[in-house]
Amino acid sequence: MAENKRGRSSFLLPQPPVITAWASVAGKKESQGPLGHCFDKTSQDTFFGQKTWEQAEKAMQEQALSLLLKKAEIQRFDLDLVLSGDLLNQCIGSAFSVRNTGLPHLGLYGACSTMAESLLLASLAIEAGIADRAAAQTSSHFASSERQYRFPLGYGGQRTPTAQWTVTGSGAVLVCRSGKGPRITAATIGTVTDLGIQDANNMGAAMAPAAANTIADFLKDTSSSPSDFDMILTGDLGKVGSRLLCELLQKDRGIDIESVHADCGLLLYDIEKQDVHAGGSGCGCGASVLNSYIMRRLESGELSRVLFVATGALMSPTSSLQGESIPSIAHAVLLSKPT
Amino acid sequence: MAENKRGRSSFLLPQPPVITAWASVAGKKESQGPLGHCFDKTSQDTFFGQKTWEQAEKAMQEQALSLLLKKAEIQRFDLDLVLSGDLLNQCIGSAFSVRNTGLPHLGLYGACSTMAESLLLASLAIEAGIADRAAAQTSSHFASSERQYRFPLGYGGQRTPTAQWTVTGSGAVLVCRSGKGPRITAATIGTVTDLGIQDANNMGAAMAPAAANTIADFLKDTSSSPSDFDMILTGDLGKVGSRLLCELLQKDRGIDIESVHADCGLLLYDIEKQDVHAGGSGCGCGASVLNSYIMRRLESGELSRVLFVATGALMSPTSSLQGESIPSIAHAVLLSKPT
Repeated sequence: MAENKRGRSSFLLPQPPVITAWASVAGKKESQGPLGHCFDKTSQDTFFGQKTWEQAEKAMQEQALSLLLKKAEIQRFDLDLVLSGDLLNQCIGSAFSVRNTGLPHLGLYGACSTMAESLLLASLAIEAGIADRAAAQTSSHFASSERQYRFPLGYGGQRTPTAQWTVTGSGAVLVCRSGKGPRITAATIGTVTDLGIQDANNMGAAMAPAAANTIADFLKDTSSSPSDFDMILTGDLGKVGSRLLCELLQKDRGIDIESVHADCGLLLYDIEKQDVHAGGSGCGCGASVLNSYIMRRLESGELSRVLFVATGALMSPTSSLQGESIPSIAHAVLLSKPT
Repeated sequence: MAENKRGRSSFLLPQPPVITAWASVAGKKESQGPLGHCFDKTSQDTFFGQKTWEQAEKAMQEQALSLLLKKAEIQRFDLDLVLSGDLLNQCIGSAFSVRNTGLPHLGLYGACSTMAESLLLASLAIEAGIADRAAAQTSSHFASSERQYRFPLGYGGQRTPTAQWTVTGSGAVLVCRSGKGPRITAATIGTVTDLGIQDANNMGAAMAPAAANTIADFLKDTSSSPSDFDMILTGDLGKVGSRLLCELLQKDRGIDIESVHADCGLLLYDIEKQDVHAGGSGCGCGASVLNSYIMRRLESGELSRVLFVATGALMSPTSSLQGESIPSIAHAVLLSKPT
């Protein structure tokens, strides 16, 4: 049984579920960035062979799951469960990707925190004994996100310096009861945090307080300090959010994470040359970086302990038009190198 | 540890989590139906004191959670976890309702299957040992759904005879490791099923095949037959979907559920007099009926075993406009009377 460290949001997994395989799919712009060579599959076609961007997102998730099974050398029906979600209204990227596959599915909505949320719940499913092999996955697509959350691309809207670039990508993880690979040894479930940011072009600022809360909770609940980790890896805070996160933790809590902090949204692109303003964002940001560059380094033992903290901004275009501020959440999972 | 009955989608809970409290909130039309007297709270104001319908949905979830805590005689901080989702884009009803409460939150998207999905995952959280008390909840609102999924209300669009009426309501359940009350003794995780229905005004037909699959899986996995239950209760199939469900099970599988089948969407309204066409629908439909009329009868022992099967249609307006058919899912939880 998992050990709840505070009677609340953090828990340890004494029999850590094992990540036996991972897979990543990414788009053209992502293939041109510093991690371009790390992805299992990249496409130069924005539509991924489909007719619409929404269908492209479904195709990315299909491809990521299919690659995952191939890399794990298992069949589809060896999977007990798929946990997934995405940014599209009604999470159609996820639902349509598992349509008529016969795979038990649990749909999630945690915005860009979904990679951590799905990993966390996959671990729970293993721990509770209802699955031996669970897939956790998510995706995002620049073009489908822009038109849903901001403007149609054809409108040619100018982006602010604080705006982030939604990553076109998908990542999938296979979480197993046993096997060989990095392990999930602890996790923290996030709380919905809102410090009043209203600017939908500054997601980093809206999400940083949620990340700060979750990281502080994790450190307190597990009696650990930043130096116990090789990396505290946020999902998509970008340049603005990353700086705010470090400041919030330092000023409010006296926690200095600067030397171990990294952000998937800053790793994925060359933010100066690739014109992505404050960096990458989207469910696919953390998903594609974690399930390529990071998992590889965990597998090899180059990294021993990575605290993966994916953050999600939980507003909708409707809530923003109604004058609401932007609530956010961050879930954390501790990934440890193979034993 | 939960016992997975097939290595796949169904599982038994040998130490069944207990539902120690439940709460329901409903709107004006719902208060005028045959179950009007069963809800904990009804409002004659469509806005629930808020400025917008989306905020009304948030307010309903806040009220349901608050009533739940009151009825259970516990404080907010006695809760370990809240699992919730709704139909609004980006599930803003759920996220905003727990904003800055400090409660660990897992966001779900299962469309109208969310009441069963959240119950199922709350049980897993208890089983895995990460929570002693978890709240599962969801909501829907007629006016916010109509304008998001179909037409603005002011447009005065005509509704087809197969159309259902989205319930304005919310329901919340407290799932505990121990205590007194109905128990969750087994569950089945659904698979995304799509038989090609494209008519967004006929949700019942789109969802019936998913319900048929899940019910057949549950019966097979647990070696039971319809006569083992006092009630097989679907969430919101309405008149059309209920008839199709019974036909599909009878014709394709030789399973006759007619004598034990009931549907929350048909219980909630007087469908002739209240002009709701094929019956009620929405996350709030199953949630409000389960957490009033049904739980009360389970508590008293009038009902012994209820298989609650909530169904969700996983399309979006965008997917429908792109010519896609409507994938659906159904999750099942077996509710047993108190020991």
